[in-house]
Amino acid sequence: MATLGLIEYADASPEVKAVYDDIMTSRQTDYINNFWKALAHDPGSLRRTWESVKQVMAPGALDSLTKEMVYLAVSTTNQCGYCIASHTAAARKAGMSDKQFAELMAVVGMANETNRLVSGYQVEIDERFRT
Amino acid sequence: MATLGLIEYADASPEVKAVYDDIMTSRQTDYINNFWKALAHDPGSLRRTWESVKQVMAPGALDSLTKEMVYLAVSTTNQCGYCIASHTAAARKAGMSDKQFAELMAVVGMANETNRLVSGYQVEIDERFRT
Amino acid sequence: MATLGLIEYADASPEVKAVYDDIMTSRQTDYINNFWKALAHDPGSLRRTWESVKQVMAPGALDSLTKEMVYLAVSTTNQCGYCIASHTAAARKAGMSDKQFAELMAVVGMANETNRLVSGYQVEIDERFRT
Amino acid sequence: MATLGLIEYADASPEVKAVYDDIMTSRQTDYINNFWKALAHDPGSLRRTWESVKQVMAPGALDSLTKEMVYLAVSTTNQCGYCIASHTAAARKAGMSDKQFAELMAVVGMANETNRLVSGYQVEIDERFRT
Amino acid sequence: MATLGLIEYADASPEVKAVYDDIMTSRQTDYINNFWKALAHDPGSLRRTWESVKQVMAPGALDSLTKEMVYLAVSTTNQCGYCIASHTAAARKAGMSDKQFAELMAVVGMANETNRLVSGYQVEIDERFRT
Amino acid sequence: MATLGLIEYADASPEVKAVYDDIMTSRQTDYINNFWKALAHDPGSLRRTWESVKQVMAPGALDSLTKEMVYLAVSTTNQCGYCIASHTAAARKAGMSDKQFAELMAVVGMANETNRLVSGYQVEIDERFRT
Repeated sequence: MATLGLIEYADASPEVKAVYDDIMTSRQTDYINNFWKALAHDPGSLRRTWESVKQVMAPGALDSLTKEMVYLAVSTTNQCGYCIASHTAAARKAGMSDKQFAELMAVVGMANETNRLVSGYQVEIDERFRT
Repeated sequence: MATLGLIEYADASPEVKAVYDDIMTSRQTDYINNFWKALAHDPGSLRRTWESVKQVMAPGALDSLTKEMVYLAVSTTNQCGYCIASHTAAARKAGMSDKQFAELMAVVGMANETNRLVSGYQVEIDERFRT
Repeated sequence: MATLGLIEYADASPEVKAVYDDIMTSRQTDYINNFWKALAHDPGSLRRTWESVKQVMAPGALDSLTKEMVYLAVSTTNQCGYCIASHTAAARKAGMSDKQFAELMAVVGMANETNRLVSGYQVEIDERFRT
Repeated sequence: MATLGLIEYADASPEVKAVYDDIMTSRQTDYINNFWKALAHDPGSLRRTWESVKQVMAPGALDSLTKEMVYLAVSTTNQCGYCIASHTAAARKAGMSDKQFAELMAVVGMANETNRLVSGYQVEIDERFRT
Repeated sequence: MATLGLIEYADASPEVKAVYDDIMTSRQTDYINNFWKALAHDPGSLRRTWESVKQVMAPGALDSLTKEMVYLAVSTTNQCGYCIASHTAAARKAGMSDKQFAELMAVVGMANETNRLVSGYQVEIDERFRT
Repeated sequence: MATLGLIEYADASPEVKAVYDDIMTSRQTDYINNFWKALAHDPGSLRRTWESVKQVMAPGALDSLTKEMVYLAVSTTNQCGYCIASHTAAARKAGMSDKQFAELMAVVGMANETNRLVSGYQVEIDERFRT
């Protein structure tokens, strides 16, 4: 169970409700993830984290699907079970196909492998990669 | 310096030269990264790793730019200096703009933050995210 | 289930019992965590690890609460489920309030984010930070 | 060198200058770290990250020194060279003594060790630690 | 449940069945792990990964037991629950005793501790360790 | 430079000198690594860490070479530059050949790859791997 428990909409303070409302409006859903309900015990963190996520994940130079796949790639590298589950769902909602998922995982796996080969062999950075 | 040193093209065995040639042809370059030159001390690993990278990074359901940005996202999460330098170069070659780079970093940073918030608050996976 | 199972007090060798007794006395409790019961299959590791934990976690220049919160911060960064659960309990026992917990998590999250921003942007260490 | 280079105060846009000014005022210094100068290429990220850091690191239920030491503990666990250097400086400025530093490192080391022992032995979470 | 589900032998395509058959023959077992059944949704990744694992884990300059213990050491450091469980089983099948397991864990724990002490104290590499 | 600097033998307190002497005797060398010289600012940590390393790395059910290679595998996974450099030297001193090093790196790379594939595909632990 979450350390401080989950705060349901009905039990939320007006400050928390305002964030919940914005999440639901922005994401066009009537569902609030457990993550936000857990974070709601600290309304300042809830608001700051949500505002940051909303700003960072908005389509810009990168589209929403790419951003969700990058989020999933990081969560997989960190092996965060909750994040993998929730961002797999989010990436699918943004249009990720099974084939895209499989290719994404292949890149994530390969990068994790070569990151260690490079470190273990103590390879020096090529002069041309020094910006 | 690399643990086993770097093997230059002129000093390479025919087996290693064949991989070097394929890298240069596939990437349309006459440059071989230090990574491959370090790995060349183990020709079997060199061939296997190169064949895997070539297969995984080929455009498919995901294009080359997306794959390079995911590679960079993983390398940044793992904080692998060499990999960040070389895959920043590769992503730029594949077309990554400064603005795309900045948005990529923002997503990587945010994912690393929320991965820990979720874990630290011990948030349970929502029923609907269990596939 | 733990790889080698758990050794209960009643089934423990005198050597293991002596460590269990010291844990209970030092912590003023009659409870032994599963961690120690799992480690008890290797009495040498059990003793060494317990002696180290006891020495490191004793109040000194840092008080017990600070030390427990640092332990929790590290465990959260590593996303170790068991460690987060047990050290949340330990930190609370040492006096951590819900508000302190929430601020702790906020710092942990922020540090994990900026660690990657710094690495990904390949920021050089400022001259004045080189000791 | 930083991927996008560093933006000095004199060359900064008014939007970036405003953040730099706030950093210098808040920290009572005339020095801007390379981190902010690198991030300044993305003024939105610069502002968002600085506002978050300022909010999170402000003394509250935890004092500034504790927060800086937690930041250092996370950076050490992640092995982020820049972050270790800059937050060691920041923690010292907030009052960290050499003895506190040494005890902090001892806790960080111990937590990283036991995190793996727990995971490797596959220890189940004690019923009483499930909140 | 696995993101894309598991593909059982009876439901597998000839391409996937061929890999399953090779796994069973090479490992002298009639059992296919869930890992392969999950990966089978991407037959190219399944084949590539299996071929790589088969090549890398074959006895050579290092014997099978040593390789399995190294695999377990890495999985423990990364805290991958599935991998710890499956490679503990594999290492035991290769002959790992309880005493070897306990010593392995002790080394893994110690290395994770000193890795952070070195990083946190910002220790410079000794001249003689620069190859 | 190391955060607190390095303490040379000539400048060491009797307590630190005693540890230095034991390191040199145990390792049959007249050289003290920078790691110990950095840690010497906290004589309690120096003694505890050295005693632990000495106990854990002593040949037992696993020989010295295997233990050094496991240490290197962990350090490579964590990408600790100092530790990779010093434990590559230690493993070589214990007899590691270039071929063993290359096979070790191949296993480390592969494990880091499959750890993420397993996590990303959300593969459930096989019933038979639950001990």
